[in-house]
Amino acid sequence: MNLKLWKRLQRQLSPGELRLDESTLAAHAGDKWFATGTPEAVALPRSAKSVSAILRFAHRHQIPVTPRGAGYGYVGGCVPMRGGIVLSTARMRRIREINEHDFVAVIQPGVITADLQNKAEAKGLYYPPDPASRADCSLGGNIATNAGGPRSLKYGVTSDYVLGLQFALPDGTLVRVGGRAHKNKTGFDFPRFFTGTEGLLGIVTEATLKLLPLPPFRAALSVGLGSMRAATRGIAAVFKAGYLPSALEVADEFTLRAATKRTGSDRFNGCRAHLIIELDGQEKSVRSELRDLKKLMAPLKPRFIDAALGAEKVEAIWQLRREFSYSLRDTGLVKLNEDIVVPRGKLEELFAFAARLQKKHAMPIACFGHAGDGNIHVNVMVDESKPGHARRRDAALDELFRWVLKHDGVITGEHGIGLAKKRWWPLAAPTEVRQLHQRVKDALDPKGIMNPGKFLS
Amino acid sequence: MNLKLWKRLQRQLSPGELRLDESTLAAHAGDKWFATGTPEAVALPRSAKSVSAILRFAHRHQIPVTPRGAGYGYVGGCVPMRGGIVLSTARMRRIREINEHDFVAVIQPGVITADLQNKAEAKGLYYPPDPASRADCSLGGNIATNAGGPRSLKYGVTSDYVLGLQFALPDGTLVRVGGRAHKNKTGFDFPRFFTGTEGLLGIVTEATLKLLPLPPFRAALSVGLGSMRAATRGIAAVFKAGYLPSALEVADEFTLRAATKRTGSDRFNGCRAHLIIELDGQEKSVRSELRDLKKLMAPLKPRFIDAALGAEKVEAIWQLRREFSYSLRDTGLVKLNEDIVVPRGKLEELFAFAARLQKKHAMPIACFGHAGDGNIHVNVMVDESKPGHARRRDAALDELFRWVLKHDGVITGEHGIGLAKKRWWPLAAPTEVRQLHQRVKDALDPKGIMNPGKFLS
Repeated sequence: MNLKLWKRLQRQLSPGELRLDESTLAAHAGDKWFATGTPEAVALPRSAKSVSAILRFAHRHQIPVTPRGAGYGYVGGCVPMRGGIVLSTARMRRIREINEHDFVAVIQPGVITADLQNKAEAKGLYYPPDPASRADCSLGGNIATNAGGPRSLKYGVTSDYVLGLQFALPDGTLVRVGGRAHKNKTGFDFPRFFTGTEGLLGIVTEATLKLLPLPPFRAALSVGLGSMRAATRGIAAVFKAGYLPSALEVADEFTLRAATKRTGSDRFNGCRAHLIIELDGQEKSVRSELRDLKKLMAPLKPRFIDAALGAEKVEAIWQLRREFSYSLRDTGLVKLNEDIVVPRGKLEELFAFAARLQKKHAMPIACFGHAGDGNIHVNVMVDESKPGHARRRDAALDELFRWVLKHDGVITGEHGIGLAKKRWWPLAAPTEVRQLHQRVKDALDPKGIMNPGKFLS
Repeated sequence: MNLKLWKRLQRQLSPGELRLDESTLAAHAGDKWFATGTPEAVALPRSAKSVSAILRFAHRHQIPVTPRGAGYGYVGGCVPMRGGIVLSTARMRRIREINEHDFVAVIQPGVITADLQNKAEAKGLYYPPDPASRADCSLGGNIATNAGGPRSLKYGVTSDYVLGLQFALPDGTLVRVGGRAHKNKTGFDFPRFFTGTEGLLGIVTEATLKLLPLPPFRAALSVGLGSMRAATRGIAAVFKAGYLPSALEVADEFTLRAATKRTGSDRFNGCRAHLIIELDGQEKSVRSELRDLKKLMAPLKPRFIDAALGAEKVEAIWQLRREFSYSLRDTGLVKLNEDIVVPRGKLEELFAFAARLQKKHAMPIACFGHAGDGNIHVNVMVDESKPGHARRRDAALDELFRWVLKHDGVITGEHGIGLAKKRWWPLAAPTEVRQLHQRVKDALDPKGIMNPGKFLS
């Protein structure tokens, strides 16, 4: 691309909205995954109008555009594979409205998820989706990847909260789909359809999100168990009793051992599995239900049960959960966090399979995550100092994904395909499904400028 | 269309799968709305394979295909406007699986909604979407229209339960999108996107639906109030206290008067509004919360509050709610049930507007419905014996929809556009949104054979 062309685009934008300096280019080369790619230009638009102008220009000159949120993705979804422009929405961070009468928020895509949540909670409102990176990731990125988190068991994922979008199509046309009504059957459900399309069909320039009444009270159990078997029995018992907890998380033995090493605590001694069960709602109800759940766990002979009452104590339990991730990093191994999902009834089989896989490939595998959804983060731990580690890593991942697909599961529940799972996309989606994707892609992005080099061409 | 062609198609199908007799054609001309149209043939396939064969044939010969569920739609969505084939899924009524480990049901599209619900409940599982016609309507139709109902306030609409679809595209290709995992980020969310497309993009041949654990207990309040103002204050108070009830329904004075006339009861004397608030969950919690909600209503000086504890008594309250519909029919007027939605904070304005509209056009207007969602059924009552009724009806509807759109609402929350609202589609969807729809439509149905004559060409 020649400089003259970039200068022309710059003249259509406000100062600072198109950067060509090396350090800005380098800062927009990748996300939390491994791959990187250098763009030729970085756009940092401050308005929908600028996004539209950039896309119109890119469309006319057939320049690749790779959308980017806060860069906290796990699958390389925002890595520019074909140069061109990285379009970051980081500068579009206005919360336009948090409305306690209509139960909606209107936000620009660069708003950090936790910011919206905190401001909503101050008004007695609740935005449930809670990806682990919520203090750093942006709502635009959450929408592009349809982010989930522990609460999605009860509250659903990002798309359950996207009532309306202003969306820039690949040719720069701005469309408003949906609105602020909580129910809407006017035409096709584009707000939800665009959610999770990983920047392949356009860019969110504004979103109207549904908010809920803030549940007044939270409580949680932290349960140490002697086996993964006991954990899956515990999970089944919770559902059987008619509970749909706001979170239901599991961690396996490897994870617990790493956590023990990091924290120096003997909390998990004798534990081979750990559950977190969180409830929210009216205080009196939550307290009584937590007591009942505790009784429900008794037949599993837990090594310990801690009850946390109130948001602060519940947060302490989640802090422990976050330690799991840090402690895996402390092992010095490279952690490949694969967010697979199995049908809820196949959790136990998954854990048994992961144990076999571990042995076979001589690689530690740590499993923890959203047991209630069947969405388990299978962390394949790679020792890059060992010879043949890349081959064994690929073989282990390949075997994992094939097993998951064979057992009616899916290769990604939260992170998306991006680059990390591109190789398994043909396995996960049969020919006619890939063709269906391509037909919609071609209809909306006939020149293929949006996020090229990912799972669609 | 000549008979020879139909005979050719018949030879590709099993006996009885393609009907040409007058009485079958007449029986498939319309739904619960006013319009009818006579098809040239009625297909009653028993398998996905037959659906595929019919579409392949229709695609090749460019024959219009109008999909049909159980025929309980409210907007003429299944009326064949261009002759051709009505493809009814009424014969595909197998429940393939209700799985209490994976929390899914796999069903054919002709299964009656209430049948699935009853069978799921017998296993301790719950399929929440509850359109008023659930005893008669089919899940395929629910998916085509993205059906809702009172419970969608807490539990969402049909698309929140569609995990996977086998879907016949307009050229007869069968695709399987999604699956039985409760969370899935593999590619675009086609299961949800196809939900609510009113038969314009293809036909559901099988669906995998998410089930929840059945809440063990239900309870409800029935509250008579002195004004609509008190009702909207009551609704706000419920949310303010952090409740998300499983239903929150309102009815206005006109509705109550009609119900009084029908039932002969003096229950509603002095009432100008009525609320139903339903809760579900663990018995102890629900009982205690219902007591708290009752206290919450006290400042509104209710004319009466009835508490219903347990499913049976709750059903009696819903029976009363159903009487509202019947009693409106008893007036002898023609009831146009318009399922508009306003932002939650604009309910009171809507009721005030409906009162003005009523006066201006000298037509009774009865409002009741899903207040929690802002989804109010505005029933315009037409006296067809009066001269000029059609003109006044059209004027009233036009004014209603324009007012709703101007106030950030939508013209349909549950029923869809179909034929009934086709006239207002251009008003509800600006040019670029209609073009977006058309681009996707053209990509998947290039010959325009699916449900032609509705809101897309």
